[in-house]
Amino acid sequence: MDQYFYSTQIYDDFLILPEDEAHHALKVLRKKTGDEIIVVDGNGGLYEALFENENARNCNLKIINSKKNIGRPNHNIHIGISPPKSHDRLEWFIEKSVEIGIQEISFILTENSERKNIKLNRILKRAISSMKQSLKTYLPKINDMVSEKDFIVNCSNNEKFIAYLREDENQHLLKSASAQNDYCILIGPEGDFSSSEIKRSEKFGFLPVSLGENRLRTETAGVAACHILNLVNEK
Amino acid sequence: MDQYFYSTQIYDDFLILPEDEAHHALKVLRKKTGDEIIVVDGNGGLYEALFENENARNCNLKIINSKKNIGRPNHNIHIGISPPKSHDRLEWFIEKSVEIGIQEISFILTENSERKNIKLNRILKRAISSMKQSLKTYLPKINDMVSEKDFIVNCSNNEKFIAYLREDENQHLLKSASAQNDYCILIGPEGDFSSSEIKRSEKFGFLPVSLGENRLRTETAGVAACHILNLVNEK
Repeated sequence: MDQYFYSTQIYDDFLILPEDEAHHALKVLRKKTGDEIIVVDGNGGLYEALFENENARNCNLKIINSKKNIGRPNHNIHIGISPPKSHDRLEWFIEKSVEIGIQEISFILTENSERKNIKLNRILKRAISSMKQSLKTYLPKINDMVSEKDFIVNCSNNEKFIAYLREDENQHLLKSASAQNDYCILIGPEGDFSSSEIKRSEKFGFLPVSLGENRLRTETAGVAACHILNLVNEK
Repeated sequence: MDQYFYSTQIYDDFLILPEDEAHHALKVLRKKTGDEIIVVDGNGGLYEALFENENARNCNLKIINSKKNIGRPNHNIHIGISPPKSHDRLEWFIEKSVEIGIQEISFILTENSERKNIKLNRILKRAISSMKQSLKTYLPKINDMVSEKDFIVNCSNNEKFIAYLREDENQHLLKSASAQNDYCILIGPEGDFSSSEIKRSEKFGFLPVSLGENRLRTETAGVAACHILNLVNEK
């Protein structure tokens, strides 16, 4: 089975594997000097590289082939989500949205948010692991928590949506989003967005949408939104 | 916030709450004699009922209002899935597919299946919990494991699909399924279906489909298929 490794220390003709990745390759998979692996840089770069030593703390590989912009999507999906109370559920959202395809994730603090902070390191690790597992070359940009107000005021994506439950008449996201665009969608907490948050988002150009008739948990709504925006861009 | 309880012991004018549900209501939520709760039977029935005692082991409630066929879907989704190695991931598939909407789940043993048995009791508990959490009244039918061959030969759903990775030209499920129908979709193991399994399924009327360009884990593919079939039936 294919397996990807991850490094951001890419130079002209060699790269350095981070210690945890090198440890996995050398100790678990028993790679030896001269063995070849595939390394991605999280920014569209894909490298075939050979181990030059077996030292996990300073693991050099010789680059024998490199490709740029592999699997670059024709759209941009940015999800602003109020993180669920359970960090497991939050990390699950990260894993699944990366698998399905996402370009940027922001965490927003809303009036009804139950979680006021996140473990950004753990989230980044989960995103990297999911990127490698699903054989992707791009890692989404992951932003630290900001207030819903700051997020809304500063959001510069082209098609902006806010998903919430209260209004039956919201149009479905699947029918609202256009293909090959630059999207942002806001996903609220279990207690939903407040009326004033919804009003403010509309003032700043966020279109209210529905994700369907079912009552979804926050993390499920996030994955559903991500899936729908990918479906809009499928052939 | 709304909260549902679950019981299948429903009689003319009273119902009995199972011990674990009664314990939660009486000890955690501190319900008292005369308090009202909402009970669902997993088969479309929804009951407003009053506690007649505070005994968790034999908890009687008086039915004051009952409704039938609440939220009955206009379609039927049956997923036959090769369960992933991790039981956590399997249970996650159960939780999310119930949230999104599913009517029947079967587990199939394929040539490349990594898991040969399932903990049906734990799966049923997770399904009940997700049904209550997402305020649904119907519990999906959940079947024990059968061989892929037995499943394919005996499957009686109207629109039958098999999702697999190998062929780029498979049409997307979103474009293959028609609205308001009776579906079955087969989801394979990490190592995918074998050629002979695919051939046999086609012989028995399963249409090969794609779930998109991304490489998805088994449990993610199951949830994605469930989501797509629900989207086909959204307004």
